[in-house]
Amino acid sequence: MKSYRKELWFEISKRRELVNITSSVEDCVRESKVREGFCLVNAMHISASVFINDDESGLHQDFEVWLEKLAPEKPYDQYKHNGYEDNADAHLKRTIMGREVVVAITEGALDFGPWEQIFYGEFDGKRRKRVLVKIIGE
Amino acid sequence: MKSYRKELWFEISKRRELVNITSSVEDCVRESKVREGFCLVNAMHISASVFINDDESGLHQDFEVWLEKLAPEKPYDQYKHNGYEDNADAHLKRTIMGREVVVAITEGALDFGPWEQIFYGEFDGKRRKRVLVKIIGE
Amino acid sequence: MKSYRKELWFEISKRRELVNITSSVEDCVRESKVREGFCLVNAMHISASVFINDDESGLHQDFEVWLEKLAPEKPYDQYKHNGYEDNADAHLKRTIMGREVVVAITEGALDFGPWEQIFYGEFDGKRRKRVLVKIIGE
Repeated sequence: MKSYRKELWFEISKRRELVNITSSVEDCVRESKVREGFCLVNAMHISASVFINDDESGLHQDFEVWLEKLAPEKPYDQYKHNGYEDNADAHLKRTIMGREVVVAITEGALDFGPWEQIFYGEFDGKRRKRVLVKIIGE
Repeated sequence: MKSYRKELWFEISKRRELVNITSSVEDCVRESKVREGFCLVNAMHISASVFINDDESGLHQDFEVWLEKLAPEKPYDQYKHNGYEDNADAHLKRTIMGREVVVAITEGALDFGPWEQIFYGEFDGKRRKRVLVKIIGE
Repeated sequence: MKSYRKELWFEISKRRELVNITSSVEDCVRESKVREGFCLVNAMHISASVFINDDESGLHQDFEVWLEKLAPEKPYDQYKHNGYEDNADAHLKRTIMGREVVVAITEGALDFGPWEQIFYGEFDGKRRKRVLVKIIGE
């Protein structure tokens, strides 16, 4: 069994942003030389997400509005977690969007449907944060 | 390490429906001849879901009402994604329900608790769509 | 390829509670002797969750309030699932929080970011329930 590990680093200048990381993950799959296996991609921070959806800017604006409706950033004092911190909403937003994806690797490539793209979802940016790519297989 | 791959195809006649796919996935596990490993089951389309929950019709009606409350289909123009398309709500509903499940395989079978069943969640039907089953192990 | 399996049992005295199970999962990783691989941790019951977030009591109170807002327990008769049972909200809450996590194992340890901790989320307690830990790798 082969295994492979890489960290992808981000420093998003805004509080919230969605970044398409599909090609970076594809690079990892090539470097791993795994032909058949699983690729785990997860946020290493608990106020960020890795998820799969469509790379369509209208949809991304819809996500922003929708997440703000389900877990609003403000007022900060609505959350017990806030005080020293102001990012309780980011923990909730990431819960909705998910921490991780597991993607099949088939014949040396991500085994994707027609529109699947992997995103890093930042919900508490303005600092360096990481995504882990771990691959196992043969 | 063994690996196995199969696509399950669906053409749901309604916009939304939940389909129990447990026995199809069990067939895959048997065909794979994997005794110990992981089984990944994921929607290959970004307006559909694969999730694990109870096969109880009242609960499925509750999911329908609840998802419509959290991410209503209409009015279509509340979503920036809609225009050519009308399925923004399906992307959001699938986000709540999840893209994928990873299930342990133990002694050649899905390693499930008493009520766990795997469902395909269609949120934008009336066309052919796919689920990927990928198994690795020994 | 090595594989390892263990069940963690819980009997939570309240209806809802979040329990940090990180050290129990770390024990499993050590027992498995897997150095490089994947660790799947999933609720075996469909009204409970396994998820990764921060071990901060304010945030946990925020989760309680937030989940009650998104999927309120009462009135029981708002849900078709309820009748013999009263736990429809627990199925919905677990859907938000997620059934499972997959964690990378690197050099014999959980490959975690600085604040990642694994929790069992009980949403319909007062009875014995289980979490499955399954590890594959080398």
